[in-house]
Amino acid sequence: MIQLDVSNATGFLPEDWLTSRTERLEQARGWLENGSGAGGSFTGWVHLPRDYDKEEFARIRCAAKKIQSDSQALVVVGIGGSYLGARAVIELLKSPNYNLKKKDTPDIFFAGNGLSTDALLEIIDLVKDRDFSVNVISKSGTTTEPAVAFRIFKNLLEEKYGKEEARRRIYATTDAHKGALKGLADSEGYETFVVPDAVGGRYSVLTAVGLLPIAVAGIDLEKLMEGAAQAMEALSVPGMDNPAWQYAAARHALYTLGKRTEILVGYEPAFRFFAEWWKQLYGESEGKDGKGLFPASVEFTADLHSMGQYIQQGERLMFESVVRFAESLGSFTIPHDPDNVDGLNFLSGKPLSFVAEQAMRGTLLAHVDGGVPNLVIQAARRDEHTVGELIYFFEYSCGLSGYLLEVNPFDQPGVEAYKKNMYALLGKPGYEAQKAELEARLGH
Amino acid sequence: MIQLDVSNATGFLPEDWLTSRTERLEQARGWLENGSGAGGSFTGWVHLPRDYDKEEFARIRCAAKKIQSDSQALVVVGIGGSYLGARAVIELLKSPNYNLKKKDTPDIFFAGNGLSTDALLEIIDLVKDRDFSVNVISKSGTTTEPAVAFRIFKNLLEEKYGKEEARRRIYATTDAHKGALKGLADSEGYETFVVPDAVGGRYSVLTAVGLLPIAVAGIDLEKLMEGAAQAMEALSVPGMDNPAWQYAAARHALYTLGKRTEILVGYEPAFRFFAEWWKQLYGESEGKDGKGLFPASVEFTADLHSMGQYIQQGERLMFESVVRFAESLGSFTIPHDPDNVDGLNFLSGKPLSFVAEQAMRGTLLAHVDGGVPNLVIQAARRDEHTVGELIYFFEYSCGLSGYLLEVNPFDQPGVEAYKKNMYALLGKPGYEAQKAELEARLGH
Repeated sequence: MIQLDVSNATGFLPEDWLTSRTERLEQARGWLENGSGAGGSFTGWVHLPRDYDKEEFARIRCAAKKIQSDSQALVVVGIGGSYLGARAVIELLKSPNYNLKKKDTPDIFFAGNGLSTDALLEIIDLVKDRDFSVNVISKSGTTTEPAVAFRIFKNLLEEKYGKEEARRRIYATTDAHKGALKGLADSEGYETFVVPDAVGGRYSVLTAVGLLPIAVAGIDLEKLMEGAAQAMEALSVPGMDNPAWQYAAARHALYTLGKRTEILVGYEPAFRFFAEWWKQLYGESEGKDGKGLFPASVEFTADLHSMGQYIQQGERLMFESVVRFAESLGSFTIPHDPDNVDGLNFLSGKPLSFVAEQAMRGTLLAHVDGGVPNLVIQAARRDEHTVGELIYFFEYSCGLSGYLLEVNPFDQPGVEAYKKNMYALLGKPGYEAQKAELEARLGH
Repeated sequence: MIQLDVSNATGFLPEDWLTSRTERLEQARGWLENGSGAGGSFTGWVHLPRDYDKEEFARIRCAAKKIQSDSQALVVVGIGGSYLGARAVIELLKSPNYNLKKKDTPDIFFAGNGLSTDALLEIIDLVKDRDFSVNVISKSGTTTEPAVAFRIFKNLLEEKYGKEEARRRIYATTDAHKGALKGLADSEGYETFVVPDAVGGRYSVLTAVGLLPIAVAGIDLEKLMEGAAQAMEALSVPGMDNPAWQYAAARHALYTLGKRTEILVGYEPAFRFFAEWWKQLYGESEGKDGKGLFPASVEFTADLHSMGQYIQQGERLMFESVVRFAESLGSFTIPHDPDNVDGLNFLSGKPLSFVAEQAMRGTLLAHVDGGVPNLVIQAARRDEHTVGELIYFFEYSCGLSGYLLEVNPFDQPGVEAYKKNMYALLGKPGYEAQKAELEARLGH
């Protein structure tokens, strides 16, 4: 199971950093387990790895098989939690170069997560001459970005295959009962999957929202859920050796001491997008009421040659949380150079992973010496089971963290602000007064 | 030319935010123009767009043509500034999906910028059965990450083509006179390009370091340099309407007021890596002596559904610098839906870029209302000329910013710390004493 090594942070913390918080952690644990805290109606993810809908799970795997058999590409239409989780897991378990690699599963493109014309045209160009399917993911069906993209890819499918076959190539992940997309899906006969009411977007990667694209990429859902279930069991046990308790307490203690930025550190390019998922999870859960750690991320050792300078010697406002996988999937031995041009023959014959390990250990000590506390999240091999654990570990710790911070970790009231302004400026019926006011402020 | 709109930040600033800094900006301008300030021996980039080596420039274009004609892939081996600039420009002007797209230029893979075994094995797998060339970029030739990768790809080329042909497929960008890589290149007869002494890694994208890979991707170097040269002319003129003066003064004023994080905002997925380049530029230049703005980045509108909540309502420690391209390269009209399922028919027939524009304006006002100052960097079309301008604008503003902050904007003393520890832990001869000490601290 995931372990947390706090030994490179405790020197910065008071002795009672954990003990002074166990009572509140016990309370937060209860709120999560029973859904009795702030935002408690959105704690459906807590027991999801045990209680998930087995019938739907089987249908997801079936749909993935069909898509694998009749499509060279899958276009996933969704934004925020309807996008980040699937992309994070696919990149972490397959590769950021997943689409480029030779494989027997479809390419996967993420659309409808922004408003870039050029990015959209590019995806159209990449799929239009190939067999493809669409997974549209939206609770309501009316969020601007995915709704616009869905109009486009639906049209494209209908032009290419006709209405009948297009319907068989559209998979809608949406509300179980209501909403625009659910209505359309029912009337058109799309296969549908459920965005559960009790699970918010950023906690939804282990629902159909994340699982269908993840399954299409050839990832073993069973093992992913097993890993999450194992973490669920382990982390529900109260106690000071619970790594989620430790992580939540340590980051809250560091915040209390004045740290304002948490940098999630990975050592694999494949981890880059998982960090983006983590940013949404923590940033949206904690960043409210003028509070919260600012979530940032780096990819080492690459970024030791970019953000490394700042981390070593800039403002002392941050700490690092390092995710360390115990082993690589493959192995590679550093070749010998008879001329030793680069002076690295003391490494000849050693595995590259040995060098990476020493870089990690050396960086840890350098940053601690520079005044940056380091928490190390130790995971096993980068496989389905471990990634399932990691997802649940971060979700559960995030719930605890939000309660320690005394915020509702399950709402996101600030996300509406830009939408309202955008609707007004776009001339959406009903927003006329606001439009005039905003235009005046913009001075044209 | 690039313009800066400060109107969404001035409400947060004292009236004299700019006038109180003009004297120091004038002084900093002199230091940059004459190389007479701290780190002045590394200001070779200031007049580079005018004074660059025209003979080498022609050779770069020649080499790029040769690589385009005999290679399906180019492996670029480099770390930090020897990697970020080229990747940033290629993604911004071509696409993050550059390698995936149909094109008549080679795929480009970046290696030697980290120590991930799996990422390295993947690149080997992606190039080994194709015709490829290698551009190794290292001032010294002894930096661990690129040196290890170069051993590997050099061996791969020699196994594939024999020693003679391999030599013709290796391009070394390195010191003009000395160092391990220069020595090897001369003895093996590689074509070489120069990492100039007077240009530090993070300011080197418009030298051979960045230009060779950029040219191989089919980007017009002439226009890129023209854009940079135009910015050089414009930004060297002292005065309060100089956008680099405004940017440097505004960010320094915001820092003085207690802001600690600058978020670079883009609205294109293609901009994502340019922001990584910007992070190195600003983080390494300013993050020292316990000072500096922490550089972060987001991609909107995607991240409005992730980091958006924090930016709207979290700790009020940040401001945003938005890079806005005036127009998209392509255009797309939102289709009409007779059933108006998603309720978006008020947008039917409108260009998607119109929606993006209103999202940007709406976000700007929402974030200002949330207490986040916004600086808007207005650029023209996303083409070579504009990106040349943008690069120079950020570099020049960064030099000014460093001097306002009273740091040396051209050194990076903190980058050595992890390297020394890593060498010791790896057992590099000469580091024995430190190794024992570090191992003891690590407790095993």
